[in-house]
Amino acid sequence: MVGGGRGAFIGGVHRIAAALDQQCELVCGAFSSDPARSKASGADFFLPPERCYPDFEKMIKTEVELPAGERMDFVAIVTPNHMHFAPAELALRFGFHVLSDKPATFTLAEAKKLQALIKKTGLLYGLTHNYTGYPMVKEARALIAGGKLGKIRKVVVEYPQGWLATRLENTGQKQAAWRCDPKRSGMGGCVGDIGTHAGNLAEYITGLKISELAADATSFVEGRSLDDDINVLLRFDGGAKGVLHASQISVGEENNLNIRVYGEKGGLEWHQVEPNTLLVKWPDRPMETYRTSAGYVGAAAKAATRIPGGHPEGYLEAFANIYKNFINHIRAKAEGKTLSPDDPALDYPKIEEGVRGMALIEAVVNSSAKNARWTKLKAGD
Amino acid sequence: MVGGGRGAFIGGVHRIAAALDQQCELVCGAFSSDPARSKASGADFFLPPERCYPDFEKMIKTEVELPAGERMDFVAIVTPNHMHFAPAELALRFGFHVLSDKPATFTLAEAKKLQALIKKTGLLYGLTHNYTGYPMVKEARALIAGGKLGKIRKVVVEYPQGWLATRLENTGQKQAAWRCDPKRSGMGGCVGDIGTHAGNLAEYITGLKISELAADATSFVEGRSLDDDINVLLRFDGGAKGVLHASQISVGEENNLNIRVYGEKGGLEWHQVEPNTLLVKWPDRPMETYRTSAGYVGAAAKAATRIPGGHPEGYLEAFANIYKNFINHIRAKAEGKTLSPDDPALDYPKIEEGVRGMALIEAVVNSSAKNARWTKLKAGD
Amino acid sequence: MVGGGRGAFIGGVHRIAAALDQQCELVCGAFSSDPARSKASGADFFLPPERCYPDFEKMIKTEVELPAGERMDFVAIVTPNHMHFAPAELALRFGFHVLSDKPATFTLAEAKKLQALIKKTGLLYGLTHNYTGYPMVKEARALIAGGKLGKIRKVVVEYPQGWLATRLENTGQKQAAWRCDPKRSGMGGCVGDIGTHAGNLAEYITGLKISELAADATSFVEGRSLDDDINVLLRFDGGAKGVLHASQISVGEENNLNIRVYGEKGGLEWHQVEPNTLLVKWPDRPMETYRTSAGYVGAAAKAATRIPGGHPEGYLEAFANIYKNFINHIRAKAEGKTLSPDDPALDYPKIEEGVRGMALIEAVVNSSAKNARWTKLKAGD
Amino acid sequence: MVGGGRGAFIGGVHRIAAALDQQCELVCGAFSSDPARSKASGADFFLPPERCYPDFEKMIKTEVELPAGERMDFVAIVTPNHMHFAPAELALRFGFHVLSDKPATFTLAEAKKLQALIKKTGLLYGLTHNYTGYPMVKEARALIAGGKLGKIRKVVVEYPQGWLATRLENTGQKQAAWRCDPKRSGMGGCVGDIGTHAGNLAEYITGLKISELAADATSFVEGRSLDDDINVLLRFDGGAKGVLHASQISVGEENNLNIRVYGEKGGLEWHQVEPNTLLVKWPDRPMETYRTSAGYVGAAAKAATRIPGGHPEGYLEAFANIYKNFINHIRAKAEGKTLSPDDPALDYPKIEEGVRGMALIEAVVNSSAKNARWTKLKAGD
Repeated sequence: MVGGGRGAFIGGVHRIAAALDQQCELVCGAFSSDPARSKASGADFFLPPERCYPDFEKMIKTEVELPAGERMDFVAIVTPNHMHFAPAELALRFGFHVLSDKPATFTLAEAKKLQALIKKTGLLYGLTHNYTGYPMVKEARALIAGGKLGKIRKVVVEYPQGWLATRLENTGQKQAAWRCDPKRSGMGGCVGDIGTHAGNLAEYITGLKISELAADATSFVEGRSLDDDINVLLRFDGGAKGVLHASQISVGEENNLNIRVYGEKGGLEWHQVEPNTLLVKWPDRPMETYRTSAGYVGAAAKAATRIPGGHPEGYLEAFANIYKNFINHIRAKAEGKTLSPDDPALDYPKIEEGVRGMALIEAVVNSSAKNARWTKLKAGD
Repeated sequence: MVGGGRGAFIGGVHRIAAALDQQCELVCGAFSSDPARSKASGADFFLPPERCYPDFEKMIKTEVELPAGERMDFVAIVTPNHMHFAPAELALRFGFHVLSDKPATFTLAEAKKLQALIKKTGLLYGLTHNYTGYPMVKEARALIAGGKLGKIRKVVVEYPQGWLATRLENTGQKQAAWRCDPKRSGMGGCVGDIGTHAGNLAEYITGLKISELAADATSFVEGRSLDDDINVLLRFDGGAKGVLHASQISVGEENNLNIRVYGEKGGLEWHQVEPNTLLVKWPDRPMETYRTSAGYVGAAAKAATRIPGGHPEGYLEAFANIYKNFINHIRAKAEGKTLSPDDPALDYPKIEEGVRGMALIEAVVNSSAKNARWTKLKAGD
Repeated sequence: MVGGGRGAFIGGVHRIAAALDQQCELVCGAFSSDPARSKASGADFFLPPERCYPDFEKMIKTEVELPAGERMDFVAIVTPNHMHFAPAELALRFGFHVLSDKPATFTLAEAKKLQALIKKTGLLYGLTHNYTGYPMVKEARALIAGGKLGKIRKVVVEYPQGWLATRLENTGQKQAAWRCDPKRSGMGGCVGDIGTHAGNLAEYITGLKISELAADATSFVEGRSLDDDINVLLRFDGGAKGVLHASQISVGEENNLNIRVYGEKGGLEWHQVEPNTLLVKWPDRPMETYRTSAGYVGAAAKAATRIPGGHPEGYLEAFANIYKNFINHIRAKAEGKTLSPDDPALDYPKIEEGVRGMALIEAVVNSSAKNARWTKLKAGD
Repeated sequence: MVGGGRGAFIGGVHRIAAALDQQCELVCGAFSSDPARSKASGADFFLPPERCYPDFEKMIKTEVELPAGERMDFVAIVTPNHMHFAPAELALRFGFHVLSDKPATFTLAEAKKLQALIKKTGLLYGLTHNYTGYPMVKEARALIAGGKLGKIRKVVVEYPQGWLATRLENTGQKQAAWRCDPKRSGMGGCVGDIGTHAGNLAEYITGLKISELAADATSFVEGRSLDDDINVLLRFDGGAKGVLHASQISVGEENNLNIRVYGEKGGLEWHQVEPNTLLVKWPDRPMETYRTSAGYVGAAAKAATRIPGGHPEGYLEAFANIYKNFINHIRAKAEGKTLSPDDPALDYPKIEEGVRGMALIEAVVNSSAKNARWTKLKAGD
């Protein structure tokens, strides 16, 4: 693990997600840029001091020398955005699979470089767009892929939060500090941190690609240099249209990612805060409430659930689904197995999603700079 | 009453709204362009045949000759859009107050003409943007006006419906037929029919004016000439931003008008389908659920409610609030009373809202025609 | 109208319910036991002074002398419980139909007497158990009657309120004062005021009769003589079981009547505070959300609705449905029409429901007095 | 671990709950009464064959001989009810702490025996009444303990499920088979399986003890010998009253445990299916929605949460909280630390809750056998 020492947020989430299914074990880490802190953090996780490295370079170069079976199997990267690319690249160069937090990199160019390297090495790369790990998100995707909603016409995806409604980054709050700092976060603030999740969710569920967008990004909090609110018109390949809006200044909202999709034959609605419910809407019969773990849900949703219906599964379980599938993919690869295209082990976000996320950030920032001019996503695919 | 004969929808709503508080009585009408149908409709309402007129001209010119106390007090106009202006104008010219269905007129120019005439005559004009009649909408307005939410930053207003997801206008369905016909509906389809309600709601609650917008309007259903879906970026006077989207092709949605507003200090959320609940959100304390008729709500909300909390009031009661206030205003005027500015009798939409609605339609259609170019609202105020 | 003068609550509700559909008109009343107050109240309703009577006896005996077409068609009784029987009996004796507020009478014996008189006179009697007027309640009843849920096994009906959590009756609040006074309310407090609604709702929806019950009734507020909270085990004819609880001391609850019914094949759930939604539950497919005015609902629900889906109908509309059906029944009778058994005009609570309500009150009070001994309902049917 | 081999449900839940916080590791087990199955199951969990024991006796007697630091620290019992007591007793006799699934034992007498043994040995015993592990349940308890709701008057606790609405136990479904078999489940069916959770939740949140109850238990499904539905009147020490109902035949209900509590000053409501929300109700101000991980919640709730607000935590996290606290208690004991009474490490259900659960089962079954006679809980405390 790179990053995620004492005081970090997402590192702890990754560790729980990895531990939950008891299919992998934390064996080493470079948990902090401060070597002493890295060691102390590792001790918290019951690691021997010699595998708590002062930096990721040292870690990668030392681990690669360990015998197979003992050395780490993959690297999890849980640092701020500006520190995603370098450890990912090095790990890949030294033959390690990589599971990275999102957004993939600091710039679109870096993401494309990583994409090329992954293609070249044949190693696996996973990206924790964790919201696609929810069973009901997978059910939504399956319903649309199966044609139940007909041709998609309209998508509304929202991600309001309120935690940055004041200038929290100036108070010493670490999470706020790096997210509002262009040197660590990149060119996007709100759009990079959560807008990318919203875009990824919309594309994952609909199976459509955002082709172009018109964005109005704002920094509402005085003195903040990155956007903390975005309102975006969307157009998708194939003619669907939509709205994406995300915000960090929507006071009172916690983490209210949600999506509605309307096709010619039906509609659906999903809310991350009540993730085990998927509303499916019809023109001529009652709205249906699909539920996690119900007998009638499809294979993808079933594979993403652990307990019977009515026992709520949450954020950590969804996150663990990314880990589970990624680990199963590594295992299949190690065992030389060929997976069928709909094997759950292949169902996790990869570098393509990473490149698209970076392209989204760039398009939103550029469109907004040109007063919401329609701007194409340059994801190159 | 002009319009609203057998088979009409909104005419019946107006009659119920007018009857509910037992403060006025239907005394005459030109219920249909077909004189026989007008008479038959009037008989349904227990009217004498001589006051069921063949057309509005005849009605206005006959009624004006009746003795005071016997002749009608005001004209309610419940026809399709292209028939709003003419009866309103004539009624005003003959000294009658007017309560009209929305949008005010067929074109922005007509609305401005009406505005001038109203000013000149000093007569009263009400417009049934009925959703502002809900008690919790009034409470939302009062909370914001009282500064509880701080300076407003973001507004999200939505109006999805699904009833026009297929080409219903070709099946003989009257409501669909005129709404999808540019000759009767005007230059806007979805935007005129429901987008204007959404815009009006946003401005009523926030007390802010939409200054400019960027719109992507679409006719999803093949062969339909007017828009059936709009996605709009909003900017308000004073710097707030937002999103307005409305749709008639969002399959499975009934009449899902809703709004969220976020200020520097708090946020709020209201849904028309559960109109007696207003969610109020804070950065540092639990979300509050305000309820119609609760002891703690403000005077405006209290004045708009008839029964104790937990006895749901709905669409017809909200609509009746427009009537009640308009009638009370007429009565006050007749009695020569001066009303204080916060008297509930003044709290109903007037020609200014009508002009703004027409300006919104024009701006959305024009912006969309120019590929979502930012376009100012030309409401002239 | 008997009762319902200035300061009353339910009288105003009756007047709105009666006016809403514009099928009847208030023509006279004995609005108060204080003749001056009765006159003043009548003036509020635009009645001529001579038809604002000092008491119900005078009203009935004067009106009966008026020519047909001019005299009142039926009497609405909206007084406290102890004043239900006498005006109902006199009206019936003088040939007037009666629409009474609930519970039917002060005692079970009175209700049976009224039942006999109604049978003898052949006049119509309606009882405003208004909650059965909601469209989705009718849909629930139709689903069960149609066998969709299979044989019914379990019923949970609840009616929590919180408004009497303190000794409000001692503060001069009129509604609380008579409801907590055994001389005006009868032997039941909470059970009479709202428990009867809950019992009626359960029987109306399921089509089953409560056969026996075991009740634990409590007066939580010190000094109060009537029950303000009841917990009741239910057994129905045919083997279904259930729970009924009602309360006036459940702080923070407004008027939260709700019901769940489970049969061998399905279940359903309805909440009065969101009355336009009916949840229908299945063992092997998604829960369905039935909605007022949707195309798929049955004839009874359709007949009880006035506006399209998504335009919320509420308490007053449900109440008006009782009036509408009762008036249509009177009209059919006057015209000598025979109604088919499923004609909506017959769908309103009658004296049988009144007798059952009084039997429920008696059974709950008696069972509780014997420490929750199982007690049969003595409704005589 | 005793039990929990291939095909079991709750064993897997225990393993995830134990792994989630990375504070303990599965080191050995007697996973099945079939030794080969036990070994195969252990292999699934990456255990060496020699620590996959053929039965719990062998496990306990072998492990006790291993050096400290290598031998197991505590035994988790995840077998059907009839197999709870024996392994718990043996483990305690050999000096191991015990964490057991609920209900504690097969009979009340066994539970009291266990209680005595625990007292004597001074060892720790935890019981997975996991629903008390939810943060918002702890917040509810803290609000009441802090007097925010005033003296408690009424409690409504419900646990409807629908999965046993048909005779599933005859189809080979393992979970149904033992739960419906008096030889493995005990004298209670529904009451033992879920009624005990409901009772425990009510007592945990209110801090009150159920003193007596009157129960109507039913076996609705033909041929089933144990109850599958219970309706119970409750009386608590101190005068509060309430209702507990639980069901396995409420078609369409998943796992709908929920509770409402009303005191003199306020009320609250919590639903297990949306566990991160706690509704708090007041007589004179808006209902508040408390949320997991919000800044304003108390220390107990905070200690039970892992991630920021809006990232839903679910059933497994609540279950893991029982493990976390139990493990921390063991660790504190091992380190000789004295814990303050409000230390979270002490906040898990113990043998007292186990005895009360068994007393509840006995009282419900006995009361129902005597036609719902009021019956005291014989928990001996």
